[in-house]
Amino acid sequence: MLFENKRNLDKKISQQIFGNKNFVCRDSEDDYYIINEQNGLVAYIQVPYYSTNLSTAWEIVTKIKQMQLPDGDYFEFELHTFGDLCVAIFKHPLSTGLGDEIFPYWYEGKAYNPAEAICQAALKIPLRREVE
Amino acid sequence: MLFENKRNLDKKISQQIFGNKNFVCRDSEDDYYIINEQNGLVAYIQVPYYSTNLSTAWEIVTKIKQMQLPDGDYFEFELHTFGDLCVAIFKHPLSTGLGDEIFPYWYEGKAYNPAEAICQAALKIPLRREVE
Repeated sequence: MLFENKRNLDKKISQQIFGNKNFVCRDSEDDYYIINEQNGLVAYIQVPYYSTNLSTAWEIVTKIKQMQLPDGDYFEFELHTFGDLCVAIFKHPLSTGLGDEIFPYWYEGKAYNPAEAICQAALKIPLRREVE
Repeated sequence: MLFENKRNLDKKISQQIFGNKNFVCRDSEDDYYIINEQNGLVAYIQVPYYSTNLSTAWEIVTKIKQMQLPDGDYFEFELHTFGDLCVAIFKHPLSTGLGDEIFPYWYEGKAYNPAEAICQAALKIPLRREVE
């Protein structure tokens, strides 16, 4: 059940961060995304394990750091650990924290593993259209 | 050459952080560490790719967070990105930065990938005997 929820989180990342729209169910619900569809043939790739593999989660960081903020600046990323808790943050370089009125771009995710914290933070970023 | 240097970094981590003392050369210099030696038989395992694989580098973070500081507290970890640069920090929870006179435990590593930054920071921590 927990594992299934994590795969669901992986799918949300695939949709919201990487813009994939069409999915196929193979081993569990919607665990493959469609990369091409022609003449009734469907090509699909497994949704990466963003929320459980830190190397894979870093692809999210790389992707989000390419997103331009309205003032032309780019997101900075931070990861903090407090005991077993991991906190991932995507922020405007000059933002001082949640509630900063001048630089309000601060999106924070918490989890007990760093990959999941990155996913949770990434999903808090409004869709690109809304940010830009 | 660059790759070889990284493997050398991996070996230093294996020695200083994980306490492995004996190595074997197979594909490149000292790329396996000995886990057991009996009756002339040697068992060895490949030195993990700490400096190039972020999931593997996280094992360093987990290990260092178990090291107790002289005042009984434990290391906290931070990772920051500034453009393409990654800065990894192992610090006393109350340390305010390099040069903090009350909480001097602040070890910082910089590199253009997060795994290598973690390695560079970890290697700045004095050997356990010296810290304790």
